[in-house]
Amino acid sequence: MSLDAVLARIDETLPQALDRLLELLRIPSISTDPAYAADCARAADWLVRDLQDLGFEAASRPTPGHPMVVGHGSGNGAGGAGRHLLFYGHYDVQPVDPLTLWDRDPFDPQVQDTARGKVIRGRGSADDKGQLMTFLEACRAWKAVHGSLPGKLTIFLEGEEESGSPSLIPFMRENAAELHADIALICDTGLFDDQTPAITTMLRGLLGEELTIHAADKDLHSGSYGGAAINPIRVLSKILAGLHDGSGRIQVPGFYDGVGELPDAIRAQWQSLSFDHAKFLGDVGLSVPAGEQDRTPLEMLWSRPTAEVNGIWGGYTGDGFKTVLPAEAHAKISFRLVGAQDPEAIRVNFRKWVEDQLPADVTVTWKGHGTSPAGVMAIEDPAFEAARLALGEEWGVPAAYIGCGGSIPIAGYFKTELGMDAMLIGFGRDDDQIHSPNEKYDLECFHKGIRSWARVLARLA
Amino acid sequence: MSLDAVLARIDETLPQALDRLLELLRIPSISTDPAYAADCARAADWLVRDLQDLGFEAASRPTPGHPMVVGHGSGNGAGGAGRHLLFYGHYDVQPVDPLTLWDRDPFDPQVQDTARGKVIRGRGSADDKGQLMTFLEACRAWKAVHGSLPGKLTIFLEGEEESGSPSLIPFMRENAAELHADIALICDTGLFDDQTPAITTMLRGLLGEELTIHAADKDLHSGSYGGAAINPIRVLSKILAGLHDGSGRIQVPGFYDGVGELPDAIRAQWQSLSFDHAKFLGDVGLSVPAGEQDRTPLEMLWSRPTAEVNGIWGGYTGDGFKTVLPAEAHAKISFRLVGAQDPEAIRVNFRKWVEDQLPADVTVTWKGHGTSPAGVMAIEDPAFEAARLALGEEWGVPAAYIGCGGSIPIAGYFKTELGMDAMLIGFGRDDDQIHSPNEKYDLECFHKGIRSWARVLARLA
Repeated sequence: MSLDAVLARIDETLPQALDRLLELLRIPSISTDPAYAADCARAADWLVRDLQDLGFEAASRPTPGHPMVVGHGSGNGAGGAGRHLLFYGHYDVQPVDPLTLWDRDPFDPQVQDTARGKVIRGRGSADDKGQLMTFLEACRAWKAVHGSLPGKLTIFLEGEEESGSPSLIPFMRENAAELHADIALICDTGLFDDQTPAITTMLRGLLGEELTIHAADKDLHSGSYGGAAINPIRVLSKILAGLHDGSGRIQVPGFYDGVGELPDAIRAQWQSLSFDHAKFLGDVGLSVPAGEQDRTPLEMLWSRPTAEVNGIWGGYTGDGFKTVLPAEAHAKISFRLVGAQDPEAIRVNFRKWVEDQLPADVTVTWKGHGTSPAGVMAIEDPAFEAARLALGEEWGVPAAYIGCGGSIPIAGYFKTELGMDAMLIGFGRDDDQIHSPNEKYDLECFHKGIRSWARVLARLA
Repeated sequence: MSLDAVLARIDETLPQALDRLLELLRIPSISTDPAYAADCARAADWLVRDLQDLGFEAASRPTPGHPMVVGHGSGNGAGGAGRHLLFYGHYDVQPVDPLTLWDRDPFDPQVQDTARGKVIRGRGSADDKGQLMTFLEACRAWKAVHGSLPGKLTIFLEGEEESGSPSLIPFMRENAAELHADIALICDTGLFDDQTPAITTMLRGLLGEELTIHAADKDLHSGSYGGAAINPIRVLSKILAGLHDGSGRIQVPGFYDGVGELPDAIRAQWQSLSFDHAKFLGDVGLSVPAGEQDRTPLEMLWSRPTAEVNGIWGGYTGDGFKTVLPAEAHAKISFRLVGAQDPEAIRVNFRKWVEDQLPADVTVTWKGHGTSPAGVMAIEDPAFEAARLALGEEWGVPAAYIGCGGSIPIAGYFKTELGMDAMLIGFGRDDDQIHSPNEKYDLECFHKGIRSWARVLARLA
């Protein structure tokens, strides 16, 4: 059977695939630091050449920032669903400071033996060069066995993911027709646990708000005014204290509009994941979940909205003591959103809810920060079930449909800018230390990641 | 009558008294800045010479910091109560920055005509050189008329009042026998209003606490942990929000132990003061008193305890947004104390009250800041009524027994270290801008202050 031949080819040529990844990892493509702009261009060119070797029509496409790499390829068809697939990854990496915390040069990557197996150590190994190469290597093995790519493929690699993706939406809009495909595959996430593959189907959205409570028109002395003059820190504390009720439910009117209940199938699957709550919290020194009391921690993280104070300040915060009664107090608050929650409606309701609580003489001013709606993937599309089965064949356990507590805006952009659904499949592990010193990618993840994509391509392409 | 002669002498020699004050004001005796140490010593020496001219046995007494000036004098007796009086003031001054906000050199004092009369402009004019010289000038006029001081007098002038008085208690203890007198007169406070003299009889005490709420053992990402991990800012807000109930009453158990009700006579007097609440709050942009709802603003400020958050901070407080779920949150809290409230008992009760509210996984650590008990002067001592009458004769309206919202520890130290009661009489006005640029002392206050002391000495010495 031809898939078996592809998988065998992947196994035989793993050393060469590894060499190619190490070569790419040696290019310090740190996107946020202008000093590395030439290295970013070099990484893009390296990928263009590699895509051309694979038979893609590929080019490095200029943007006001770092270039995009776009490649188009086609082949005889894998005998799967015949979909036109777009693959997304990013070739830029995080900065490496503090360098002193690295065991070796972050851009002199090395395969190391560890107690938990072989790892590829180096900046970008997991985020995202190692992951994006899993897909290219799957294509390479396919072509070696079959003489052509497995079907109609578009490759779309960004160089600004670690620096806010300023060029992404404009580039998508300018090249919408060219980039359109049946579905996007995004490889920038992780496994559920060490041996359970995952498709991320729910991403929380985000709303950021910053408020300043104003009371007296100047800072006062608490000896002269304390007791008679209203303290804005007291007002702010009262408002923040009322943001959740005793059971953890958020009190802003209308906040839960658009928050659906989890489909039974997903709930059942999550229960079967045997997520280790105790370890998850224990790893950061905690033991008791703090969210809504009638929800499991996985639900709290993946499918329930939150309100968190990310910063608070007011009055004197230096050494020693100053008996000031401040004129202002400040907080930064973020809401994680799910389902169909409308960020702009919540912003309006939240501001009104705060303003309605202000006592006499007290006013509030606002600074709105960014918003993104929640992402809910189209799991009713048969491509999802097909990918789930393919991943299950490789890893021995069915892939889990998981949520992600954070916000990955790219998935939403494929929908809003290009009208495409997206599927997030990745092979990272929790201990990969992405964004941190000594980043690594397990050789097993790299290897089985390539094999996973071969299986997915066989079903979808 | 001999007092009339003294008062006439004061009026006649006011220009010379003013020249002496201007000479003292030219010495930049900023105690907190080591660069001015020699100037502090020079101011002390100037005062020693002036006291010696008045017939005091006086000396500049070294301390680890700036010197104390101590003088002892006696005279034929003014025919009053024959008390041995100790007079306290301080010759050091506040720093002058920002210099650009001064209309002239702070240490080149000048008498200026203003819409509200003549003022003595310069650093230290009101706080406290102008005030301390009122007493010395009264003694000088007395001696000129009578040939001797009005009675047994000790003069005690400090040079570190504006820098925390580090040498004061040790010096008091080492020289307790020498400094002991029947009562202390402290001249470092103000009139009640422009034409109403005051004796400050109630000073609020102070307790400072700083707390850190600890949750996870590191800062977390609110995407990965938000909802499931407890946020210490939320815990802190809840605690601070519960510090007062809806009517403004402080909720720490036992907090009101030792808080007495105001004596009827004092309450009646305060009501007769026609304190302008609207103007007091309006001057700082407020309109509604924020303290206990069944108390007048004067009571809130002078005779009721408070709990105020003077500083709060936690999480990300810089520009932009960071979705951090912090490991810690912090607050600085001060309590103003009255009556017989015990600062140490309140510290214990407050800490327990906070600790009892902590949810699972959350701990608190404490940093205790300074305490001072409230000061309640011994107004049953006939010296108070005598001084009140004397002041009333000079100003045309009886002196008010007033409270002070702030803490002036010196009054308490006379009691605790030397076993003496103290009486706070001063002639400052609200617009004197002490501690600020363009400090001034009204010439009228200087003149009538000298005359006031002559009248007080006539009754007490």
